[in-house]
Amino acid sequence: MYKIIFQIENSNPVEAFANEGEILLQIAQRNNVAIDAPCSGNGSCGKCRVRLLSGKLDAQRTRHISEEEFADGWRLACCSKIVDDIVVEVPDIASAYRSRMKVADLSTGKEVEIFEQSRAQVLAAGIEQKNSMDILDIVMDAPTLDDTMPDNERIVWAIKAETGVEKVRLPYLVMRKLAEVLREGDFHVKCVIRRTASDIFVYDVMPATEDVIIGGLAIDIGTTTVSAILLDMQTGKILGKASSGNGQIRYGADVINRIIESTKPGGRKRLQEAIVKETINPMIREMCRAAEFRADHIYRMSIASNTTMNHLLMGVSSDSIRTEPYIPTFFKTNSLFASDIGIRVHPDAHIILAPNIGSYVGGDITAGAFISMIWNRPETSLFIDLGTNGELVLGNEDFLISCACSAGPAFEGGDISCGMRATDGAIEACTIDYETMEPTFEIIGDPGTKPVGLCGSGLIDVIAELFLNGIINAKGKFVREGERVRHDQYGMGSYVLAFRKDAGSVKDVEITEVDIDNFIRAKGAIFSAVRTMLRYLDYTVDMIDDVYVAGGIGSGINMRNAVVIGMLPDIPVEKFHYIGNSSLTGSYMMLLSTQAERKTYEIAQGMTYLELSTVPTYMDEFVACCFLPHTDDRLFPSVELKGK
Amino acid sequence: MYKIIFQIENSNPVEAFANEGEILLQIAQRNNVAIDAPCSGNGSCGKCRVRLLSGKLDAQRTRHISEEEFADGWRLACCSKIVDDIVVEVPDIASAYRSRMKVADLSTGKEVEIFEQSRAQVLAAGIEQKNSMDILDIVMDAPTLDDTMPDNERIVWAIKAETGVEKVRLPYLVMRKLAEVLREGDFHVKCVIRRTASDIFVYDVMPATEDVIIGGLAIDIGTTTVSAILLDMQTGKILGKASSGNGQIRYGADVINRIIESTKPGGRKRLQEAIVKETINPMIREMCRAAEFRADHIYRMSIASNTTMNHLLMGVSSDSIRTEPYIPTFFKTNSLFASDIGIRVHPDAHIILAPNIGSYVGGDITAGAFISMIWNRPETSLFIDLGTNGELVLGNEDFLISCACSAGPAFEGGDISCGMRATDGAIEACTIDYETMEPTFEIIGDPGTKPVGLCGSGLIDVIAELFLNGIINAKGKFVREGERVRHDQYGMGSYVLAFRKDAGSVKDVEITEVDIDNFIRAKGAIFSAVRTMLRYLDYTVDMIDDVYVAGGIGSGINMRNAVVIGMLPDIPVEKFHYIGNSSLTGSYMMLLSTQAERKTYEIAQGMTYLELSTVPTYMDEFVACCFLPHTDDRLFPSVELKGK
Repeated sequence: MYKIIFQIENSNPVEAFANEGEILLQIAQRNNVAIDAPCSGNGSCGKCRVRLLSGKLDAQRTRHISEEEFADGWRLACCSKIVDDIVVEVPDIASAYRSRMKVADLSTGKEVEIFEQSRAQVLAAGIEQKNSMDILDIVMDAPTLDDTMPDNERIVWAIKAETGVEKVRLPYLVMRKLAEVLREGDFHVKCVIRRTASDIFVYDVMPATEDVIIGGLAIDIGTTTVSAILLDMQTGKILGKASSGNGQIRYGADVINRIIESTKPGGRKRLQEAIVKETINPMIREMCRAAEFRADHIYRMSIASNTTMNHLLMGVSSDSIRTEPYIPTFFKTNSLFASDIGIRVHPDAHIILAPNIGSYVGGDITAGAFISMIWNRPETSLFIDLGTNGELVLGNEDFLISCACSAGPAFEGGDISCGMRATDGAIEACTIDYETMEPTFEIIGDPGTKPVGLCGSGLIDVIAELFLNGIINAKGKFVREGERVRHDQYGMGSYVLAFRKDAGSVKDVEITEVDIDNFIRAKGAIFSAVRTMLRYLDYTVDMIDDVYVAGGIGSGINMRNAVVIGMLPDIPVEKFHYIGNSSLTGSYMMLLSTQAERKTYEIAQGMTYLELSTVPTYMDEFVACCFLPHTDDRLFPSVELKGK
Repeated sequence: MYKIIFQIENSNPVEAFANEGEILLQIAQRNNVAIDAPCSGNGSCGKCRVRLLSGKLDAQRTRHISEEEFADGWRLACCSKIVDDIVVEVPDIASAYRSRMKVADLSTGKEVEIFEQSRAQVLAAGIEQKNSMDILDIVMDAPTLDDTMPDNERIVWAIKAETGVEKVRLPYLVMRKLAEVLREGDFHVKCVIRRTASDIFVYDVMPATEDVIIGGLAIDIGTTTVSAILLDMQTGKILGKASSGNGQIRYGADVINRIIESTKPGGRKRLQEAIVKETINPMIREMCRAAEFRADHIYRMSIASNTTMNHLLMGVSSDSIRTEPYIPTFFKTNSLFASDIGIRVHPDAHIILAPNIGSYVGGDITAGAFISMIWNRPETSLFIDLGTNGELVLGNEDFLISCACSAGPAFEGGDISCGMRATDGAIEACTIDYETMEPTFEIIGDPGTKPVGLCGSGLIDVIAELFLNGIINAKGKFVREGERVRHDQYGMGSYVLAFRKDAGSVKDVEITEVDIDNFIRAKGAIFSAVRTMLRYLDYTVDMIDDVYVAGGIGSGINMRNAVVIGMLPDIPVEKFHYIGNSSLTGSYMMLLSTQAERKTYEIAQGMTYLELSTVPTYMDEFVACCFLPHTDDRLFPSVELKGK
């Protein structure tokens, strides 16, 4: 038995014990030490770098680690076996793209504005902002020796008299506190209820003098990022907002690696705990703290997420999603409660799950498609959700068709050396001067914030500008020289966005050919999906009336640049609309409005799912798309390089 | 901080720590050391005796401890404060009346016979042995690329097709295992369901090849004793039977002391854990082990208990039961599930609670009254449940009236120095020779078992025989001398039932005047309740057609002797019927038969509750009843002393 000490950057060290021959990455995962492992530990991604400070590891140098780095102690945790007591340094992956949880400031901002626009559009379409939750004020006669009705019958009788509803259910948690609350309130109480035409479920009871707001929690569980909104179920007012990296990320960057991890012994429990205990519960805690709200006053939840994420959340097997014939346990389910999976809100809180429509088009897309309103227009529109999975819905008020492609985490800053989420220090927009090749940035944060890295919208700009200025070619290789262009010993080019002295990080902020290549494959996956879908319907690009772009890529996305790099179809720029995190907005609307919930179910019911892997031409399309903007220039007639 | 070591007779020692001045009894309770404390630790009962082996205790001698005993180290734990590290010896209270859990032999015996008689009578009255639980055999098509219906819809669809019921609910626990079970069973499975006309709830799903029995658990929670039956819900077959002392007993012998304890900080949790974790769960474990049955295959439960016991079980406040106007939280509730209170069966198992009808007439009595069948006869009958509380129901097919009195634990062997439950070594019947004053016994257990103490039926016999033979007078004082009659230094008489050499215990088995006095008060409580009830209705004793006696007192009860001592009314002995533990039988029938459950609810609904404490003459009746047989001889014309 050896002793392993993880020295974690910006955090407390973790001690662990391991047997001879155990893999360091697995020991880290077992002990909740977050080491980035997008490939789930098969040695291919080279991200799980740690630095050996003392002791020995049985580890070969891999292509991801230079000789200097190896000499300096750098190893891949997934390729290192324990043979000694060791101390290793673990880089803080939060400082890369997995930034720590962020509890949002609710003062106005672009995101909040987009959010409010979406809500206004939904309401304008005649969807009522009305749900089944309510607060009743109940006054009872106090019992006497001549009126000895027990407490539960007394309150049920009073609720029936007040509402006219015949069936009233008092669950255990209400029964348990009833005697005290009735007497504390002198038989005048408030009841938090859920009401349908035929029955009332009493969630809570409290003395009438107590203030209570019916809390609701809407969550978007992305493969990379999780976002949540705490709201007042009666007014719709947003009380808190938070986002965080998905704690499952250490088990793999994409859904396939997560599913594989979940099939290992104890895997389902580990992945469920990573999302519930390590991600969602801390977010709830933080939001409630910031809003001064009691978590047990959150009586209802709604979750939008892809099919794998909601299966892993529920702790059900996701293995059959991955293997033919790709069958999930559920598309929709009505039988999930907070206490079933350990979410720390009111234990009886019902969880609405946005319905899945396929193994790879999940509730995040049905919720997002609802918010895009494309189902409410006669014209054909395209809805694109740019996340770790790219999902697309094409259609109008008569039909909807959807498909999914694996874009990888690039749009959220993953798989990019200087990538990060759209938080303070992220370059969210960029132009480059043709002559000097000097960049100009817009950086998220207070004025004067120094650049730390690139978020998705910044990446699009940087790559578009590098391409338009002829600094990189259609294959993403560096073809101009200059102070900011470098080549390493293997000839790999890079462009320095900010030298160390000007940067908010400890090293130069630069983008490499590997980064560009990763990004080109991500955008290629999106555009090839668009092409395949159009071809399937015998449509052409000009038959798309509007394009609604959603996702964590941020409101800063420059649609023109997204066309320039060949990610979005070459149609007039005014036809593009960024609608923010539509999965979260959809989740919020489902919670707030019973009609919205019903509509989302209808959308899921009516949507056709196109499995790209069964379309023979998809791979050819994809290969053709892995250029800037495309191997077939005629698809992007408006794109012209500078200096030509 | 001092170290306290409890040396527990017949068990492992327990170590604990305590601060200066803490009360030894509380330390014991906190550390689950069972010290008998019927008075809940107020110094009045003298039962919490421990013996100091080393160290010092700040404790005065009380009237319960002789000088010799005090010198020998005996102290009352409730009157001893910590001032030193100590070692104390704790007598095993199990060897007194709180015998350890007993998993019954299911081979025929008197109790089983009585049980079967009760069931036969219920069925003869037209109550169907049919409930809502069922097992379905479900065959589905396996999914293909052309048939990609998710697992949950697939099975729900198949269940609907099989049953014709439109609403099928799959709870979380079924969802969680569904993918594996369907594939393990090749889409041929068994479902354990509960079926109503309008919906089906699926409790469990397993491959069709697996054997499954739908387990049901019927429990009677008495203040002193808890009994349980494990049964096959489809056939009614009894798979296991167990009884145990109620773990709450260390917090007080009767409901009032328990309620008081529950109002102390943390009290409700302590009392709930004592009944659930320390009593019921170990019984389930033992029964399941003996029957080779999986506890998670127990899908439904039914509990009959008095109002305080079911309130403490649920962890709801029972304080308002004790104080005017005596209002419980519930009479009936339908919203309790095993997982709510931590009972270790299937977490979704629904718990049927036999309905209470008053603060002091609980579900044990409604269940028992159902079993007595007095509601099904034109003649007026009396039902008496002899437990720690004595409860009575008088009536016929037209009316039922009930009342309760506090008899104390005497009928179950409590509050009696040589008292014990009706288990091996208990004297269950006794005669005494008039000339020699020598006793003759029937002892529970294999032939040759030596006497250990007296169970309820034995107590009745011994006191009746002592009285009939003129050994004690009408006040219960010893008035004849002999080898077996003793007087201690204070003049208190006792009768030796078995000298140490002939006994199964380490000391003489004897009955003292204090024991007799306790018993007289217990029987007085019962008969004064009978008298008060008859008077309330303007009935006389001869209007009672039959008397049904239930309770842990045992099938050995000699009804004639119960009349002799003035516990039961002086009517012909053939009118008395012992119906066993009718609360447990009723609980069993409610579980097995939906009609029985409904009938028990009807009985509760229609029963009038007479609160004795509000009847002005009750106290006078009680005082008059505290004689053998009664101050008014004319009420017992048939009782004649021997030798007269």
